[in-house]
Amino acid sequence: MASIFSKIVAGDIPSYKVAENDYYLAFLDVFPLKLGHTLVIPKIETDYLFDLTEPDYQGLMNFTRRVALAVKKAIPCERCSLHVIGLEVPHAHVHIIPINSMSDCNFANPKLKLTPDEFIQTAQLIAAQFE
Amino acid sequence: MASIFSKIVAGDIPSYKVAENDYYLAFLDVFPLKLGHTLVIPKIETDYLFDLTEPDYQGLMNFTRRVALAVKKAIPCERCSLHVIGLEVPHAHVHIIPINSMSDCNFANPKLKLTPDEFIQTAQLIAAQFE
Repeated sequence: MASIFSKIVAGDIPSYKVAENDYYLAFLDVFPLKLGHTLVIPKIETDYLFDLTEPDYQGLMNFTRRVALAVKKAIPCERCSLHVIGLEVPHAHVHIIPINSMSDCNFANPKLKLTPDEFIQTAQLIAAQFE
Repeated sequence: MASIFSKIVAGDIPSYKVAENDYYLAFLDVFPLKLGHTLVIPKIETDYLFDLTEPDYQGLMNFTRRVALAVKKAIPCERCSLHVIGLEVPHAHVHIIPINSMSDCNFANPKLKLTPDEFIQTAQLIAAQFE
């Protein structure tokens, strides 16, 4: 069965898209730890990050770098942290989180509740900075 | 003043080395969340990961991939998680943590206390798997 992220790639599930090319997609985490919390995925469905081929891994991490630079420009923060845990959804994904302290990226924290308008506005702010 | 990691690179502070080339160094975190918790750094001192030049960033992430593959072979675990937070030491560093659950990589957890012999043995196990 296709992962929830493959359904997002296919457009069967809507998402707040931030950046996209033929191989990679970045969209807002709908359970964000902080405003601007973004996920970056390869469109090809692979569970474990380090099972990606070396070129696919490289491409994903390079695309992630461009996304992180855009998030930092769009969202006031000290820096962006980067996390790949991978036990939540069996489709490799990189978390980019705008943080001001270590505790901002503690995944045990309660998630922010945003309105659809807040998600749309945040995605547009980041997308406008993506190069 | 040189960062503590630059002092490790220079050999002024000892470390449990796992892998090294001219540009990157991997060594055990001495405050590990789990056995095998490893740090990967660029030898060049840059605070923020995304301030590295694109080639330096690519090289670091590719070296990190090889380290993560070695850690997973050496240490029994479900997978390796990857984290870059960067508010602890002002020298970009990637955490590789062998995990079995989300909570295994919660940085608020108490750190393991290992003996020097346990660190040496763990570093040797991982180094033996590094390709």
